[in-house]
Amino acid sequence: MKVRVVENVLKANDAVASANRGRMDQARVVAINLMSAPGSGKTTLLERTIPALGADVRCAVLVGDLQTTRDAERLEPLAAETIQINTGTGCHLTAPQVAEGIGRLELERLAYVFIENVGNMVCPAAFDLGEHRRVVLLSVPEGDDKVAKYPTLFQQADAILLTKTDLLGVLDFDMGRVRDDLSRINTAAPFIELSAKSGQGIDQWIEWLRGQRRL
Amino acid sequence: MKVRVVENVLKANDAVASANRGRMDQARVVAINLMSAPGSGKTTLLERTIPALGADVRCAVLVGDLQTTRDAERLEPLAAETIQINTGTGCHLTAPQVAEGIGRLELERLAYVFIENVGNMVCPAAFDLGEHRRVVLLSVPEGDDKVAKYPTLFQQADAILLTKTDLLGVLDFDMGRVRDDLSRINTAAPFIELSAKSGQGIDQWIEWLRGQRRL
Repeated sequence: MKVRVVENVLKANDAVASANRGRMDQARVVAINLMSAPGSGKTTLLERTIPALGADVRCAVLVGDLQTTRDAERLEPLAAETIQINTGTGCHLTAPQVAEGIGRLELERLAYVFIENVGNMVCPAAFDLGEHRRVVLLSVPEGDDKVAKYPTLFQQADAILLTKTDLLGVLDFDMGRVRDDLSRINTAAPFIELSAKSGQGIDQWIEWLRGQRRL
Repeated sequence: MKVRVVENVLKANDAVASANRGRMDQARVVAINLMSAPGSGKTTLLERTIPALGADVRCAVLVGDLQTTRDAERLEPLAAETIQINTGTGCHLTAPQVAEGIGRLELERLAYVFIENVGNMVCPAAFDLGEHRRVVLLSVPEGDDKVAKYPTLFQQADAILLTKTDLLGVLDFDMGRVRDDLSRINTAAPFIELSAKSGQGIDQWIEWLRGQRRL
């Protein structure tokens, strides 16, 4: 019984996700689902990304959080439109929540919709939101064992960003271990080393993002 | 339908949790459920804690992870007994998993059972495992906004540990904001600033742990 209900929930979610993707395809907007543990730097990354894409590239952000509107407030001055989705006790965003969010956007005027998922390395991986690309962040202070410990998330990623690389000199972090673990589960996704502080990797990330518009 | 199934799952879990607590009460062992985001330092904390408690204080550790046995391998040389519980795609430990784990322990010979939950700030908060105390870790690099963003977890905590305080000089982290957010949701739990690197706070944490045996 339990399994059947879970399957039904996922099926209903996936149908809405497909509809979301269809609407965004039609509007020629690229939707990026950002997933990571809490505090990996999703909001900080968007603060750097939106200005770097250029003033003519209009971006919207859907921000998932259990509570608070802090991330949305941080992004409001930068994005064309910012919508906070509070999940209450929900541990991930769902496709219906995203459908409601994009229903409030002028999709035709946008280039990108960034979906900042709830900070969680497990549950968001099971829910298609209608995104075109999945981007997974791992921050240096989380440790070099996380690819092996949360393989599902990293397996599905279209791009993997190692954030807070400015802390590589301060913390023990074995890059070889991360690359080795990734080589077993995902060799297709680019692996970009990023620091919002020093600016390392931002160009490479922006280039990757621009490439997604041409696909 | 969905809600009723979820309620049944929680009820079944809670019944097993009560039985777990009963068994551990009888054996006069204190069970501590450690919860945090991935990479907050749960395993590192246990590596420091078990030797600091003293050789005559026997500890067992149940380690929850989706995959890998890395954390259990790290703790094996230190704890009297170490049991890895792999949850597969499960985003939290459940009481039946803990029941199976403690069923394999010589509870009467132990002083503490540490339960290292899956790294996740949302889902573990909903599941009683039969622990006596809930300890929540927040690491400095995760950021000073996490108490407000994940209030349920911090609300339930019997002790709150701020870890990796050696990074306070390197990162922007507003301690006042954390204390202010905590003052609204949990004033009972001690707030201990810890660094496994410098040793800050370890004595205070050990003292708190010893105090739980007398309650």
